[in-house]
Amino acid sequence: MSSKPASHEGDRVLIERVTPQIDGGRHPVKRFVGDRVEVGADVVMDGHELIGARVRYCGPGFDRIREAPLVYRFEPDRFFGSFDVDEVGRWQFTVEAWPDHWGTWRADLRKRLDAGQDVLLEIREGASLLRRAAKARGSRELAVVADDLDDTGRRLEDRLSIAFNDEVRRLMAGPLDPQELTRQRRVLEIVVDRVRARFGAWYEIFPRSQGPQPGEHGTFATAEAQLPRVADLGFDVVYLPPIHPIGRTHRKGRDNTPTAGPEDVGSPWAIGSEHGGHTAVDPMLGTLEDFDRFVEAAHGLGLEIALDYALQCSPDHPWTREHPEWFRHRADGTIRYAENPPKKYEDIFPLDFWCEDREALWNACADVFRFWIDHGVKIFRVDNPHTKPLAFWEWVIAEIQREHPDVVFLAEAFTRPKRMKALAKLGFTQSYSYYTWKNRSWELQEFIEEFLLGEAREYLRPNLFANTPDILTDYLQEGGRSAFQVRLLLAATLAPTYGIYSGFEICENVPVRPGSEEYLGSEKYELRWRDWNATPNVNEDIRLVNSLRRQSPALQQLGNLQILPCSNEHIFCFRRYWGSEELVVVVNLDPHHPQEGVVDLPLGEMKGLHEGAAFDVEDLLSGERYGWTGSSNYVRLDPIERVGHLMRVVGSE
Amino acid sequence: MSSKPASHEGDRVLIERVTPQIDGGRHPVKRFVGDRVEVGADVVMDGHELIGARVRYCGPGFDRIREAPLVYRFEPDRFFGSFDVDEVGRWQFTVEAWPDHWGTWRADLRKRLDAGQDVLLEIREGASLLRRAAKARGSRELAVVADDLDDTGRRLEDRLSIAFNDEVRRLMAGPLDPQELTRQRRVLEIVVDRVRARFGAWYEIFPRSQGPQPGEHGTFATAEAQLPRVADLGFDVVYLPPIHPIGRTHRKGRDNTPTAGPEDVGSPWAIGSEHGGHTAVDPMLGTLEDFDRFVEAAHGLGLEIALDYALQCSPDHPWTREHPEWFRHRADGTIRYAENPPKKYEDIFPLDFWCEDREALWNACADVFRFWIDHGVKIFRVDNPHTKPLAFWEWVIAEIQREHPDVVFLAEAFTRPKRMKALAKLGFTQSYSYYTWKNRSWELQEFIEEFLLGEAREYLRPNLFANTPDILTDYLQEGGRSAFQVRLLLAATLAPTYGIYSGFEICENVPVRPGSEEYLGSEKYELRWRDWNATPNVNEDIRLVNSLRRQSPALQQLGNLQILPCSNEHIFCFRRYWGSEELVVVVNLDPHHPQEGVVDLPLGEMKGLHEGAAFDVEDLLSGERYGWTGSSNYVRLDPIERVGHLMRVVGSE
Repeated sequence: MSSKPASHEGDRVLIERVTPQIDGGRHPVKRFVGDRVEVGADVVMDGHELIGARVRYCGPGFDRIREAPLVYRFEPDRFFGSFDVDEVGRWQFTVEAWPDHWGTWRADLRKRLDAGQDVLLEIREGASLLRRAAKARGSRELAVVADDLDDTGRRLEDRLSIAFNDEVRRLMAGPLDPQELTRQRRVLEIVVDRVRARFGAWYEIFPRSQGPQPGEHGTFATAEAQLPRVADLGFDVVYLPPIHPIGRTHRKGRDNTPTAGPEDVGSPWAIGSEHGGHTAVDPMLGTLEDFDRFVEAAHGLGLEIALDYALQCSPDHPWTREHPEWFRHRADGTIRYAENPPKKYEDIFPLDFWCEDREALWNACADVFRFWIDHGVKIFRVDNPHTKPLAFWEWVIAEIQREHPDVVFLAEAFTRPKRMKALAKLGFTQSYSYYTWKNRSWELQEFIEEFLLGEAREYLRPNLFANTPDILTDYLQEGGRSAFQVRLLLAATLAPTYGIYSGFEICENVPVRPGSEEYLGSEKYELRWRDWNATPNVNEDIRLVNSLRRQSPALQQLGNLQILPCSNEHIFCFRRYWGSEELVVVVNLDPHHPQEGVVDLPLGEMKGLHEGAAFDVEDLLSGERYGWTGSSNYVRLDPIERVGHLMRVVGSE
Repeated sequence: MSSKPASHEGDRVLIERVTPQIDGGRHPVKRFVGDRVEVGADVVMDGHELIGARVRYCGPGFDRIREAPLVYRFEPDRFFGSFDVDEVGRWQFTVEAWPDHWGTWRADLRKRLDAGQDVLLEIREGASLLRRAAKARGSRELAVVADDLDDTGRRLEDRLSIAFNDEVRRLMAGPLDPQELTRQRRVLEIVVDRVRARFGAWYEIFPRSQGPQPGEHGTFATAEAQLPRVADLGFDVVYLPPIHPIGRTHRKGRDNTPTAGPEDVGSPWAIGSEHGGHTAVDPMLGTLEDFDRFVEAAHGLGLEIALDYALQCSPDHPWTREHPEWFRHRADGTIRYAENPPKKYEDIFPLDFWCEDREALWNACADVFRFWIDHGVKIFRVDNPHTKPLAFWEWVIAEIQREHPDVVFLAEAFTRPKRMKALAKLGFTQSYSYYTWKNRSWELQEFIEEFLLGEAREYLRPNLFANTPDILTDYLQEGGRSAFQVRLLLAATLAPTYGIYSGFEICENVPVRPGSEEYLGSEKYELRWRDWNATPNVNEDIRLVNSLRRQSPALQQLGNLQILPCSNEHIFCFRRYWGSEELVVVVNLDPHHPQEGVVDLPLGEMKGLHEGAAFDVEDLLSGERYGWTGSSNYVRLDPIERVGHLMRVVGSE
């Protein structure tokens, strides 16, 4: 606080509560390319003058600063406006405001005229405002207008028509003098991602399991043969667990047994062997050239490849010899293996991100991303990011996205909410979520309210995986094929990005032991050959729902969702809407029994409908039509027939 | 974002959502001397290590930095702690956190021991942690402990007892190395005010009306005679409207008529004449020496004097001649009078706070405060602050409080909520509020929730005036004596600071015309002699309630309030509590009719009570006792007898 009041230049107004914003601007908010960014700001000024306000913004090049007006409306002292983000990358914006002398003068002049007052002095005042602006902006045009307005030779009507001229109003927009401009103190940032970061169906598959016949180790070449099937099911992203050489030392055996036999293939997450580390491919899978061909084949089918990014090393990783200083050591000088005392994970060495040589280590980790980006990979599924420093992620994601703004980072952070959210705030494009365990109505509601509708949606985009190699939920274990249908339908319709881990489509549901979420014969430790047409399966369900997702704009957006009340807690019902499209999803969460109930629709809020309306809905899953009347309608779902409806209000599209 | 990861020193953890804080730390929060500041912070770190955290704070001298521990509790990843503010002035605090290596090592060692693992290597690891801290801190003591722990000649039990020694734990508190410390990026501020800023009963009186007999102009000397009466009524602060010379030009007559007769005394808010401006006293009131004596007399009675601070000038103010550049001018060169088009206020010239010479103007305005502070005034009631720049108030209040931290500024900002709040955020100690117009249960509830219990309580302290020279509400006009009793009781018990404008005590309630909130024969424009014992009056009510406020700690605190449900909407009921004191206030808002209903008490939350308890309450207003049982109890209030109860749970004190 200075004692020189002159330093308060630029403080004519107070700008507060600017949205969108998180944590006082400490982190960027996130949007998708093509989005309209709605901006709001409280602008408070003394006195009775009108206020002018605008948002200044610039795209990733920072070369062209644009402006959009902010308008006072909806609530006292609050201004609103918007701008479109039409390029992927990091945007900036700031709110500016100023006393609107010209607008105030015009409005006051009108009141004086209406009261029959003499306004000649006021008109001269207006001319001096015009001259002030003309001088500050070096505008000949405004100087001429000033002279015209001030011309006592003219008739009053002519002078008033200049005063109220809209073109003059336009010319006088903005602060008269630069020092009357107040700028929001902190520049806010927006990370704008590409469309695939918002909308996509993911499929996780282990290439090594895709051998030509049971027991034969798959390669990129044989895995390529699966791609048409995956594309035909309607997926967009194929996610591969680590494809790097796998360590030998302390290799885990089948079902996570502590010792491996000579035939055991080991966990792909135990990265590194004499064949290389994070920038090598497992020789059993082929060569880098084979991988490149695999990526190219995927691209040819409209599929994008996502790679696992797991920052840990097997004891055989080249870094353990080349850079022992990147690891922690025990008191006897050996490298410290992973532990969660008293549990020991001797097949894995964590990296010491805060080691003395961390600059080299962090750069080496960034180079791993760069290496695979050069091989056509633009999506990374990051393994356990919550066990590596937050500061590392903030740095490396910004670094990589500065070079490649279209790279997508998915955080596999199954951890406490604040850590999950912190990783998203610090840069991760998408996040695994608690969806996998949310099976009951109230659980789904809490999850949706916190992660799809709450403040978190400014920065966190859940990728709703229905299962993973680590997570075979009780619900899937016990619910039979219907359970798979329920979890698929919910995942695919609640959020624009969802995924399944292969085996889901043929309803694999046997745990290693009762009470465990691990699969029996887990693919993490062994090859797993599958008959993709085994029964029961949900292949047709997947194909249909993925196809409907591509046709429905409402299912491609994040957050345009409203949970609808239903009289039966086993039936979960929600609305998705976008533009003129109105969808109603009704799902029977009970995979064992028919459930029926009455669903309540907010007809007054729904496009093209009104309270008490009669309308048709079409179940996009079955093609059947139902005539509904009013807001309360009966539904009955028998899991033997179907687990849910995906209904479009007929005529709503 | 730098590409040098080494710059992430100090980012081991993420510190978020630090409380108390407003608008991302842009403004200080406010507290009162003696308060305990409760601090909370989310601290998020990767991995499984424990986190250490503390708050660092310093008082106004900035000479002694203190620390208080923050402890993980109540909710995941959140830390809590507190410190006391024992000095008036501007405090600072910041949250710091670090990985707690020693605590983690101890906890892990315990788990390893419980699992029967060999821990000799771990003990050596512990010794190296001790040595690291010994080196970083230059501690001989820790070096010795390290050697003892590492001494293989000792028995394991002895070494373990060193490991788990609490004194060693204490020595190892804090970050091992300074670079492992993360500090919250923004230092937060707290303005700590004196007790009178929180707790006080205000009385507004025009000294010029305190003549010895009707029609005779009062002076400071004759007004002094009123002070014992005011002190006897239990008031703490006597607030005087402007005492400066009053302009002649365009002086307003009685009841705000546009022209004054020669006998008309004019509005004290039209400040300045040939006798001086803001640093002079109206010669009709006496001399500066008389004022000093008046202040001294007040102090002698335990009363503090609050002065009006109204930054505007009559056309006769010395500044209009000495500093015409401090005013705006019309196109004909005359000084611009105040207007709200089409209304004109020709008796008032507003100052042009953004004029070229504003540094001199702002400093002159600051000097007005300094002048009256030198004359013993430490409380200023600021007239219409929302018509002067926010930046001016932020500057001048900080400036004056840097010199005199005990000065209190009350904002008379009857304006929209965001402007009212902005003035409070920017520095005003107290604010006039909408209380004056809140007469019904739902209105009171909304007001209380927004201004006494909501986020605003971090910076805004309402001063609940029951009337003002500008505001005689319909409720008071129409409700008779009971209405005055109701508004008094509510004001005096809802908030620790409240006030009345003189005439309230004798139930003055005649408006200048129907539908107006202006008094007939408004004291703003004429002298008003009063018989203070006229009937009806509420003198005894005032004396009693002010006396009870001084005896009751709960009524001296801000915000320790809970609205209680009542079956009858005409009865407003709330709880005040502090320490072991439990008060229940029940008020019949209907001044005309008896009302009865059932009041619900949250017995489980109330000190010394429990669900279903039987207990006695004593009405402190009447001395009567009632036996109550359980949470629901019947009340009946007949305004002829009494308008409310101020009940203390017997034994709660």
